[in-house]
Amino acid sequence: MNPRPKIRSPPPNSKSPFFNVFPNSSFSSSHKMPRKSFIKPTLTLASLLSFSLFALYFVLSSPNFYIQQKIHDGYVDDKANKVKVYVYDLPRKLTYGVIESYEKSRGGEAKTDDALLKYPGHQHSAEWYLFRDLNRPSHDRVDSAVARVYDPDQADLFYVPFFSSLSLVVNLNRPGTLGAAAPSLYSDEEMQESLIEWLENQEYWKRNNGWDHVFICQDPNALYKVVDRVKNGVLLVSDFGRLTHNQGSLVKDVILPYSHRINSYLGNVGVENRDKLLFFMGNRYRKEGGKVRDLLFQLLENEEDVIIKHGAQSRESRREATRGMHTSKFCLHPAGDTPSACRLFDAIVSLCIPVVVSDYIELPFEDVIDYRKVAIFVDTNTAVQPGYLVKLLRTVSTERILEFQRDLKKVKHYFEYEDPNGTVKEIWRQVSQKLPLVNLMKNRDKRLVKRDLTEPDCSCLCSNQSGIQTTL
Amino acid sequence: MNPRPKIRSPPPNSKSPFFNVFPNSSFSSSHKMPRKSFIKPTLTLASLLSFSLFALYFVLSSPNFYIQQKIHDGYVDDKANKVKVYVYDLPRKLTYGVIESYEKSRGGEAKTDDALLKYPGHQHSAEWYLFRDLNRPSHDRVDSAVARVYDPDQADLFYVPFFSSLSLVVNLNRPGTLGAAAPSLYSDEEMQESLIEWLENQEYWKRNNGWDHVFICQDPNALYKVVDRVKNGVLLVSDFGRLTHNQGSLVKDVILPYSHRINSYLGNVGVENRDKLLFFMGNRYRKEGGKVRDLLFQLLENEEDVIIKHGAQSRESRREATRGMHTSKFCLHPAGDTPSACRLFDAIVSLCIPVVVSDYIELPFEDVIDYRKVAIFVDTNTAVQPGYLVKLLRTVSTERILEFQRDLKKVKHYFEYEDPNGTVKEIWRQVSQKLPLVNLMKNRDKRLVKRDLTEPDCSCLCSNQSGIQTTL
Repeated sequence: MNPRPKIRSPPPNSKSPFFNVFPNSSFSSSHKMPRKSFIKPTLTLASLLSFSLFALYFVLSSPNFYIQQKIHDGYVDDKANKVKVYVYDLPRKLTYGVIESYEKSRGGEAKTDDALLKYPGHQHSAEWYLFRDLNRPSHDRVDSAVARVYDPDQADLFYVPFFSSLSLVVNLNRPGTLGAAAPSLYSDEEMQESLIEWLENQEYWKRNNGWDHVFICQDPNALYKVVDRVKNGVLLVSDFGRLTHNQGSLVKDVILPYSHRINSYLGNVGVENRDKLLFFMGNRYRKEGGKVRDLLFQLLENEEDVIIKHGAQSRESRREATRGMHTSKFCLHPAGDTPSACRLFDAIVSLCIPVVVSDYIELPFEDVIDYRKVAIFVDTNTAVQPGYLVKLLRTVSTERILEFQRDLKKVKHYFEYEDPNGTVKEIWRQVSQKLPLVNLMKNRDKRLVKRDLTEPDCSCLCSNQSGIQTTL
Repeated sequence: MNPRPKIRSPPPNSKSPFFNVFPNSSFSSSHKMPRKSFIKPTLTLASLLSFSLFALYFVLSSPNFYIQQKIHDGYVDDKANKVKVYVYDLPRKLTYGVIESYEKSRGGEAKTDDALLKYPGHQHSAEWYLFRDLNRPSHDRVDSAVARVYDPDQADLFYVPFFSSLSLVVNLNRPGTLGAAAPSLYSDEEMQESLIEWLENQEYWKRNNGWDHVFICQDPNALYKVVDRVKNGVLLVSDFGRLTHNQGSLVKDVILPYSHRINSYLGNVGVENRDKLLFFMGNRYRKEGGKVRDLLFQLLENEEDVIIKHGAQSRESRREATRGMHTSKFCLHPAGDTPSACRLFDAIVSLCIPVVVSDYIELPFEDVIDYRKVAIFVDTNTAVQPGYLVKLLRTVSTERILEFQRDLKKVKHYFEYEDPNGTVKEIWRQVSQKLPLVNLMKNRDKRLVKRDLTEPDCSCLCSNQSGIQTTL
């Protein structure tokens, strides 16, 4: 509605650096000059030179030019508009030491050189990817929403890089539990306690009641023993299955995707190579929210174009799951012990449309991803009605399947931890978005006076709708 | 720790546009040239000109240069990084019509030309300032965090510019209530109902359950009849005194300051002209949270350097309050009917250090303002102990008072609605920060399936500390 002047566009004919600025000037016609007027081109050239040098000076000295440089030349000063993160230099036993303990617990050799230690791939590897990312030189992190700073006084947020999920794995591997070879008596609980003990000696931890600290605890059991003492912080989690309302929430925390464990499908959209309707492979029996699995097995295991199989973690299982997910139209995603499971992300990178039967699931990056476009949600009670699920899926037209697949392709990069435009970048963007609330809470906490509260002092965002049966 | 190349700095000696680029060139020594080499300066100049034109071309054609222009020349394309806001063209009776009704209710003439209508100044004028701001041409709004768009499909957020606070005032002015002259039978409740009726016919209102709509209801009673139907929206409020936890929260909504009603103090920091210790003028008797006022009056009215006075709204009261706030070191801010009151903002712009006795107060812009630096908070039970308050304030050193005043000066602009770098700009910045959560909620709502919930589905941010007696 407002008439606007047009954007200034680059000069036409821009192949030559001189293009057509002086079509009639004595510069372009200098070769025709009569002999005696040799002084004229000199003066003309001098004044043109003055003008162009002046123009160049004007552009270079404009503050905008330098601001721009600051923003785009990451290595010049990439911190201008970024959230500044200080990474704690934790005692080694809480970072590389956990990897070392892991290797030992599997009977490996004790490597003490950090560069030789290899973090084992598993579905909770985000802690490794984030740590590795923060250790990259800053000119490699130009596109990130956060910049690492080395002076805590400059920091907006403090990152605590304890490998809390791997620590759980090491604990499981210890002698007596899995019959591992090494004589390690690793205790994850002791690690958690010693993290807190160390933190509580840090000036910056005490300064803001922990509101400006970021913790990674991607395995739903990670940090379980001390989570109540770090609950003010921004928690990077898979779901809130093991957290109370007072410990974790969509408002304060960030939901991370699991690392997918099977290979991405690199082919194009299409149904030609996807002759199975629905695929699932995984543990048939789970605790709590996962009890629906056994029911679904009973319902689906005799359907002809459905593959539903019990399978534990193994290299062979992964190969079979890859085959299944790459050749099925839909992939079932029932709740695990907690509402989330890595299978969802395996399905997404396989372009196998997830059918989510997990009523309390929280999903990563939901401000930028509309999951109705890439998945089908069915409420548990409806999903376990005999015949319902396969009947529903058979009604989906090929055109609609291709549409889902095209949308899956668009969001796939969010679930690729190794993609420079992938998960790690998005996690930091999500973390950076928490800063206004973090700052609000840290300022507010310090001026709150004693009150007669009848209930906890919480600020909430409540969903007011009662839920649907399926998004299809 | 990382060694970084230094920022490119502007050339030295930059007073002259030529500074010292060619100290030894034939250009600067050209006056010494022997007669026969006249061709040499021409060639030198030509090549210098080529070089500088090339450099100029290089800078101008760099994509960064144009990106920069896009960002800074607002009128070129000011929407690039901004949150896009669509302003509803509401029925006239809900915007200018409210002003017209106001004038009528005071016996004024019925002006039907919008340009002649004058919005009356009062403490809830934010609705007018925001409306006026959004109606400014976009090249005047370059620094704003939001850009107005005229196509609802482009919008991130939808602004509903109903003058809900003025509507309450008109309602109070109607015949029988205040004995006003005009025969208007204005009903604020009818206005509220008709707003909802109108909204519920809007496609964009239904599309996202209202999550992406922004409502202004600055008077704690504004929109009271329909607030439950607009609670998903971002509410611009003074406090949460009249809202339930499910309707309003720090997470979803924005706390606005009242318009200050007395003149700003334009002098410098200092205590020379501030011979009174503590000042308060206002209604002695209030409902609910304001009952503390009468207690404070009893305690303080006989202290010699304290002025505490009952006073109602009038021009004369405002003049007296201005005098009092400009000549006192501290200004008392007890709760009103709800925890907030305009007196706090009057005190801030008067550089009179607020002494806040209002346990449940929420404060505007608390992510960027640390109120401990500009105000003193005392919990109500402690504040009403005989002698406590004046004794506490007398211990504050002059140096500390000056420090408070200097910090007040720094944040004062946030409370000046007329300042281009003031309240309006900050409100939009606060609103723009809500977008990630708005987007999250609108996506999540649409895929939530039926659940067996034992409590409402809320995501909360809870303060875990028990509160202090005073921040001093």
